[in-house]
Amino acid sequence: MWKGFAMAEEYWNASLETLPWAEVENWQAGRIAAMLSGLPARSSLYGRLLGHQELSLTGFADLARLPFTMKDDVRWAQDQADDLRPFGANQGAPLADIVQAVSSSGTTGKPMYYALTGADLEVWTDAIANAFFTAGVRKTDVIAHLVGLPMVAGGMPYADGFRRIGATLCWLGGFPTERILREMRRLRASALLATTSFGLHLTETWDAIGRETGVASSLRTVCLGGEPGLNEASIRERITDGLGITRLSEVMGLGDVVSCLWGECAAGNGMHFNAQKYVAIELIDPETGAILPWREGATGEIVYTTFEREATPLVRYRSRDHALVTATSCSCGRTSPRIRCIGRTDDMLIYKAMNVFPTAIRDLILQRFAGKVSPMLRIWKDRADQVRFDEAIPVDVEATAEVAPSAYPALAEEIGQFIRSQLQVRIAVNLLAPGSVPRGVYKTPLVVVRG
Amino acid sequence: MWKGFAMAEEYWNASLETLPWAEVENWQAGRIAAMLSGLPARSSLYGRLLGHQELSLTGFADLARLPFTMKDDVRWAQDQADDLRPFGANQGAPLADIVQAVSSSGTTGKPMYYALTGADLEVWTDAIANAFFTAGVRKTDVIAHLVGLPMVAGGMPYADGFRRIGATLCWLGGFPTERILREMRRLRASALLATTSFGLHLTETWDAIGRETGVASSLRTVCLGGEPGLNEASIRERITDGLGITRLSEVMGLGDVVSCLWGECAAGNGMHFNAQKYVAIELIDPETGAILPWREGATGEIVYTTFEREATPLVRYRSRDHALVTATSCSCGRTSPRIRCIGRTDDMLIYKAMNVFPTAIRDLILQRFAGKVSPMLRIWKDRADQVRFDEAIPVDVEATAEVAPSAYPALAEEIGQFIRSQLQVRIAVNLLAPGSVPRGVYKTPLVVVRG
Repeated sequence: MWKGFAMAEEYWNASLETLPWAEVENWQAGRIAAMLSGLPARSSLYGRLLGHQELSLTGFADLARLPFTMKDDVRWAQDQADDLRPFGANQGAPLADIVQAVSSSGTTGKPMYYALTGADLEVWTDAIANAFFTAGVRKTDVIAHLVGLPMVAGGMPYADGFRRIGATLCWLGGFPTERILREMRRLRASALLATTSFGLHLTETWDAIGRETGVASSLRTVCLGGEPGLNEASIRERITDGLGITRLSEVMGLGDVVSCLWGECAAGNGMHFNAQKYVAIELIDPETGAILPWREGATGEIVYTTFEREATPLVRYRSRDHALVTATSCSCGRTSPRIRCIGRTDDMLIYKAMNVFPTAIRDLILQRFAGKVSPMLRIWKDRADQVRFDEAIPVDVEATAEVAPSAYPALAEEIGQFIRSQLQVRIAVNLLAPGSVPRGVYKTPLVVVRG
Repeated sequence: MWKGFAMAEEYWNASLETLPWAEVENWQAGRIAAMLSGLPARSSLYGRLLGHQELSLTGFADLARLPFTMKDDVRWAQDQADDLRPFGANQGAPLADIVQAVSSSGTTGKPMYYALTGADLEVWTDAIANAFFTAGVRKTDVIAHLVGLPMVAGGMPYADGFRRIGATLCWLGGFPTERILREMRRLRASALLATTSFGLHLTETWDAIGRETGVASSLRTVCLGGEPGLNEASIRERITDGLGITRLSEVMGLGDVVSCLWGECAAGNGMHFNAQKYVAIELIDPETGAILPWREGATGEIVYTTFEREATPLVRYRSRDHALVTATSCSCGRTSPRIRCIGRTDDMLIYKAMNVFPTAIRDLILQRFAGKVSPMLRIWKDRADQVRFDEAIPVDVEATAEVAPSAYPALAEEIGQFIRSQLQVRIAVNLLAPGSVPRGVYKTPLVVVRG
């Protein structure tokens, strides 16, 4: 993949991005120690979690002595909201200092809120700018920001990051798709940010509608994220060809930590971590919680510690994001680990005592049936908390236009047999016509609940 | 209306806000002169409009020697877009310096774009913060921003203003109304910003849905704008009572100048001008173009000159906003003129040689039939450029729930006769059930075109 981009590559924060990772961790340990000393006093969540804990930290490895923070701890904290602390028991700054609330998309239940003080906002904007700079966005770009919900993690925080880089922000999210396509031409958009599924969706009409404007496409750089899909070479190729671009980068973040933390450099093959100035990362075994070294080929769960977060801080936060470490060095000179997100550690399903990740089903189907099926597949649960399946797991798969409807039954059968041969798991394939699976405005879930 | 708020009132920019208006204009004249000297060189629109003009300015009154900039000039300029200047012939800064595009809502045709450099963004954010501070928003507020389109003038620029004040920005625009109502309770929103029609719409369900959360309302301050309606005492009362608030302020701006320029102080009775540090205003006779003095009771068109705008500057820009000057002094200590916007000078209709403003029809109906009709009325045209009517002008009027459907014909007849008696204009009233007129996401137009 690497094509000699390294010479042209620059850094957002050269000293930290190219510092050997062990030295980054050493420096972070000092920052974390300073943060920890005052934490239980300002966050009642951490008063509870760390109250009787020895908080001195002599090196980065000492982090392992601290307890994890689980998603349920954060939910509990939020449920303690009152008029002075609308963000609950983890509100670590007075309300008068808080300038912004960030929300989860809330598509699967009560939304989660995270808060930013003025200082936190500065941290977020710098870190997000760093990630998008790594992903190829520059001051000279005109960037179409295609997320339509400003309050979510990928909304206004991304817009702030683009402005910080100095790119021309054209926040077209929220407008109808045809208007987006026309205005991107008129405004000479050279870059775009969207969810992976919306990026794919755009490839279908990009040139047909764009051509009507009489303005040639200026699009060169595309950043996609928020959803899986970009692990697949066939999907990357469809987007690159469909949009006629020279660079496609995956980006990733968490609303509870920093909403864009990782970005793919020009060398490709995984995302660099870009928030080392503000956030520490660990890789752990999701079963045992043991620390795993950053080593090429390792897989594990990413754990985050924010050491510059005033409003809603997190210590050893279990992201549930399951990562594959693709490299620990890079031709671009950045020293952070590189990863691909390969699933969520908390979405495992059990079919007759066999463990299976929804992403494994999806990835296998997309690899084996590239060109015949679209990446918009859906796995159905009867209830949000369903883990066990005693019958075949129902999966909607969307055929491409290349497949004649008469061939659907045979293809469905073939997909089912293939998954059984690979995973020892039975799935019930429901093969659908192109475009049948609704594309989400923000995120298109892989696993959906009936009803 | 004034209830002794003055003592508690503070200023965003005390020295300029309380400087005698003549001194403000004097100071502005110097800034304008400096700006004008370089303008034709960086803007080819102004190279054309001002090229042969004597540009020296010895005092504010000399502004009158310069030509007006009309909306059509700006449209022409935009149509000159090319790859280096996507904002057209009035792009006064290189693309690499531009960090943001702002769009008109585009509901009535091709959208207009305005651009901001980093310095422009700073100007906008400060001026918008000033206007919302005047309108009562404070650092301690949790503000629900209910505009769902981030790229429009009332989208991200307002969000930036709220953060600059230090209020907690909860940008709930774009979510479904029920989610907005619930989350405003959970987040303890004490202030909100919305279009006038959406603010009115919220009063219908505010408490019913909010109560389900089990959290009492914290709402105190409401800022509304973008549409007419707040001239009417009955509408102000409905909103104040329906939302249970203590302060309602009107705000107004223009995407092409600064998206919030005017805000109503606690004394009420009109909006102060809040962008004196960056923008000059004149009042003119819309027919002759002659300057009118700022005098209580005067009416005229507001003309704007931006003297701190790098990207898309405007000189003597005809806003077409028709204003009534409600006062030239204020108990709050601010020295700017206070106005109400009473219509648009370019939307005049002609009924059998009688001139009539759509806003006059609306305002008369709302005053005379308060309680019986909603402010959501619509005047229909057959074509966008229709000005003349030879038949009665068709008007949709929405009844309130207080009116029995059996009484609709009599009420329609009564409204028609009343308008004829007041304006010598015939209207054809189509009386509709409550909620029949669709509420816009961003702006609800008063005059609509069939088809």
